[in-house]
Amino acid sequence: MTGPGVFEVRDKDLAGRIGRLHTPHGVLETPALLPVIDVARQELPLEEIAAAGFRAVITNAYLLWKRMRSLAEKRGVHGILGFDGIVMTDSGAYQILEYGDVEITPSEVIEFQKRIGSDIAVILDVPTGNRRSRSQAEHSVEETLRRARAALEEIDPDQRVWVLPIQGGPYSDLVARSAREAAKLLGPYRLLALGSPTVLLERYDYATLLEMIYTARANTPWSVPLHLFGAGHPMIIPYAVALGVDMFDSASYILYARDNRYITETRTYRLEELQYFPCNCPVCSRYTPQELLEMPRDQRVRLLALHNLYMLRKIIDKTRQAIREGRLWELLEEMSRGHPTLARAFHQLATRYTGYLKLHTPRVKAHAAKGLLLSSPESAGHPRLLIHHESLVTRYRRPPSLEKAVLIPVTDKPFTHSEIYRSITGKPGRPEGTHVVGYQLYIGAIPEELAETYPLSQHETPSIPYTEAVEATAERIADYITGQGYREAVIYHLGPSHWSHSVAARVEKLLRSRGVKAEAAELPPRNGPSAKS
Amino acid sequence: MTGPGVFEVRDKDLAGRIGRLHTPHGVLETPALLPVIDVARQELPLEEIAAAGFRAVITNAYLLWKRMRSLAEKRGVHGILGFDGIVMTDSGAYQILEYGDVEITPSEVIEFQKRIGSDIAVILDVPTGNRRSRSQAEHSVEETLRRARAALEEIDPDQRVWVLPIQGGPYSDLVARSAREAAKLLGPYRLLALGSPTVLLERYDYATLLEMIYTARANTPWSVPLHLFGAGHPMIIPYAVALGVDMFDSASYILYARDNRYITETRTYRLEELQYFPCNCPVCSRYTPQELLEMPRDQRVRLLALHNLYMLRKIIDKTRQAIREGRLWELLEEMSRGHPTLARAFHQLATRYTGYLKLHTPRVKAHAAKGLLLSSPESAGHPRLLIHHESLVTRYRRPPSLEKAVLIPVTDKPFTHSEIYRSITGKPGRPEGTHVVGYQLYIGAIPEELAETYPLSQHETPSIPYTEAVEATAERIADYITGQGYREAVIYHLGPSHWSHSVAARVEKLLRSRGVKAEAAELPPRNGPSAKS
Repeated sequence: MTGPGVFEVRDKDLAGRIGRLHTPHGVLETPALLPVIDVARQELPLEEIAAAGFRAVITNAYLLWKRMRSLAEKRGVHGILGFDGIVMTDSGAYQILEYGDVEITPSEVIEFQKRIGSDIAVILDVPTGNRRSRSQAEHSVEETLRRARAALEEIDPDQRVWVLPIQGGPYSDLVARSAREAAKLLGPYRLLALGSPTVLLERYDYATLLEMIYTARANTPWSVPLHLFGAGHPMIIPYAVALGVDMFDSASYILYARDNRYITETRTYRLEELQYFPCNCPVCSRYTPQELLEMPRDQRVRLLALHNLYMLRKIIDKTRQAIREGRLWELLEEMSRGHPTLARAFHQLATRYTGYLKLHTPRVKAHAAKGLLLSSPESAGHPRLLIHHESLVTRYRRPPSLEKAVLIPVTDKPFTHSEIYRSITGKPGRPEGTHVVGYQLYIGAIPEELAETYPLSQHETPSIPYTEAVEATAERIADYITGQGYREAVIYHLGPSHWSHSVAARVEKLLRSRGVKAEAAELPPRNGPSAKS
Repeated sequence: MTGPGVFEVRDKDLAGRIGRLHTPHGVLETPALLPVIDVARQELPLEEIAAAGFRAVITNAYLLWKRMRSLAEKRGVHGILGFDGIVMTDSGAYQILEYGDVEITPSEVIEFQKRIGSDIAVILDVPTGNRRSRSQAEHSVEETLRRARAALEEIDPDQRVWVLPIQGGPYSDLVARSAREAAKLLGPYRLLALGSPTVLLERYDYATLLEMIYTARANTPWSVPLHLFGAGHPMIIPYAVALGVDMFDSASYILYARDNRYITETRTYRLEELQYFPCNCPVCSRYTPQELLEMPRDQRVRLLALHNLYMLRKIIDKTRQAIREGRLWELLEEMSRGHPTLARAFHQLATRYTGYLKLHTPRVKAHAAKGLLLSSPESAGHPRLLIHHESLVTRYRRPPSLEKAVLIPVTDKPFTHSEIYRSITGKPGRPEGTHVVGYQLYIGAIPEELAETYPLSQHETPSIPYTEAVEATAERIADYITGQGYREAVIYHLGPSHWSHSVAARVEKLLRSRGVKAEAAELPPRNGPSAKS
């Protein structure tokens, strides 16, 4: 049950998960990022990488084969690197593609990775790249699949984790085909890898990248982990995880460092642009940007690379912690304001992939889920809200005798403890047949008997009435009222500066257009601290 | 020119600045945060605080006086603390208020701070607190002012920086009066301090706190630095700086640590809630939450306090770097998505204080300003955009002979290099008398001859057509067209999925309602990569 490639999912949020992938050198906790090690030129020693918290690395089998074949076969890849953690080797197909070198055969690459004792090994695929024509992309898909089938005789899945790359690049239908065919070969192959988004990342085309990931994940079994090749900047990692990516590799930590580039969670700076480090990692806590600039180049590259790795480790841990709390959506939302590119990526998630995200978001969290944070127009698409609304529409039935809905804005949680609720229900002679229903921005309708259930009393919102938020809220309320077949609705609201004012007006209009008797009515002003809610 | 209390402003953004405050023990770079040192119980040694990058601390003169008066007078406060950086002493008024102890006189507090050699010293004020009645608040303002005037004979402004507290708490008019009267005493007093927002912070009432800061700053001279007492959580610091606060003190780093609470930039966690540290500071890079939980209490408190300090140092440096780049607004926007309370604070800044922020935002940055990042509905209120729009309305005049505006959406920057621009202007027989004007979400109108000026070609936006953004953009365009007195406008736009579609429709409607001949017209679809912009 714990042979190489066994993957256990420990926690989930959206389509992201915390998992454990078994390998010969121990268990890799995912999501994980593997720093790329260049055997010919490694400015940052492996011990420092390990000390920064990385238990797994990746290196290039083809370059090892080309440069130190017999030594590598003798000492093994762990011996060459002087590293006793998990070592993944890439087949070098991407280099071969780039530099046109074809001196190694698919069988040789497999055999070599067996001999050097890789923990996670990749067959010699044919990367699509992103500058290629459709027919070239088709060829890369078919040839990779042909090689994967041929390799079934050669790989040793009992000894290590074998990786099957998915190709197709920017052509969605080809990615889908590649993924579906790859799925048929799972068993011997226990890890999928999505090929070479490098060009997309270079031009910040996250829209196409997210679509690639979505397509690959939607066409492969959920139980198998997915690696994304070459996406090594913190800004994209949580978004890729949210769509179902489990593993990443990064050469950017060192490539950027060589070019004096400094990575943050949502941006990249040139070192000269920084007067102060916006970071408190061990490197940034010890040095100033000026000090780094004045150092000898080797030392500067080493320290910048180390900072970049600390930043990558942080984003991985932040993503894991967010999954644990059930707040991955909130993390994506927060990061989305750090760069317009991420704002667009988040908007895409909140509009295009909500159905998929809703499907994968667990209904019940193993660990105490935190309340929802609802702060932007996109919050209306929060998968947990969609789940709630769907279950309200499909499973809930109002008490049959209560045919008149009295809607009141949520000002305290649960709203059944609020002054407004008491003022409505406390009156002597509460009219028979009325059902009090709270309503809240983003969330919509909350029948009084459900007021204390999750997430109806576990949420926080700044209650800013963005038009999109008001419209989505009003739609949800109107759908609830018509779906439950109330005969009549009164929508109470507070004064013009309160969010409920615009929501009530819109609900009234929507309900009337659907033939339901509806009336919006202003409540008298309230006093006391609850007026701030 | 560099005696105690001299304050030099080195850089500015919004109403925040990077400054240098001269003290007997060196220069304090602002914005700065001073960790509170408790002489009776300091779990985290001063050397570790200094090693974490803090060159200034604050301690309580009253507690020193009460517990070790003669020793303190003999060894000085630097000797007692074993710290050769900058030491600020608070007068202890807040403790006296809380515990009702009045065994020290205002003159004794002044004399004691002189004897122990404080670098920055505070007179014995009467804090308003926040639970007090209006008449109590009035008393605190008047009594503090009376003591400040009386102390003019006793303080020694040549020897140290003397601080004059502003009182009034949640009563805006009292804060305004307190600030105006305090301003008259500047000279001997060279640092202002805004009193005791602790209760507001505890209940997350940032709206009242920001209003207090705004009122204090709007009624005091800009050249004098302002300290905010007791606001020691990273989440509020950049917002307070943006309104003009220069210095903070924090006891929360240690109070929270004693209570197993872990500070991040936008939240506070209980240690038990963390499975992974969302941070890469030296503490979090070395230990896991589990390891901290299993430690002896003393060690855990020390490490948590150290993490909390690293987080505070980071937010100070991040704020400084943002001021340097001219991106303080963008930092506030990014953080605003981290917590609903901050979303509300940011919304408040973007609606209530934009005039004030615009006034203080420098027109020209000494250091290369970065482009604007425009990503949320609030981006319409970006002070740099307001400055641009104002100068377009008041200073720009269109070429008089060009009476017909041809408006085209910005798809590339500058838009005068775009395919659309070429297709409009390149036609043989471009109609005489037409002025091509680009338009962009948030920014509004861009006359073709200004296309390459800041910030018209230095901005990035995800171009998400939030209703509020569309409306603000359309208003700006319509104001431009009517203000410049064009006779006619054609508003070209792209297809229904492009942001320009809804902007054009709205501009057409606005212009017609103002009696300008206007027509929206769809452009033929474009090809190539520029379609993505």
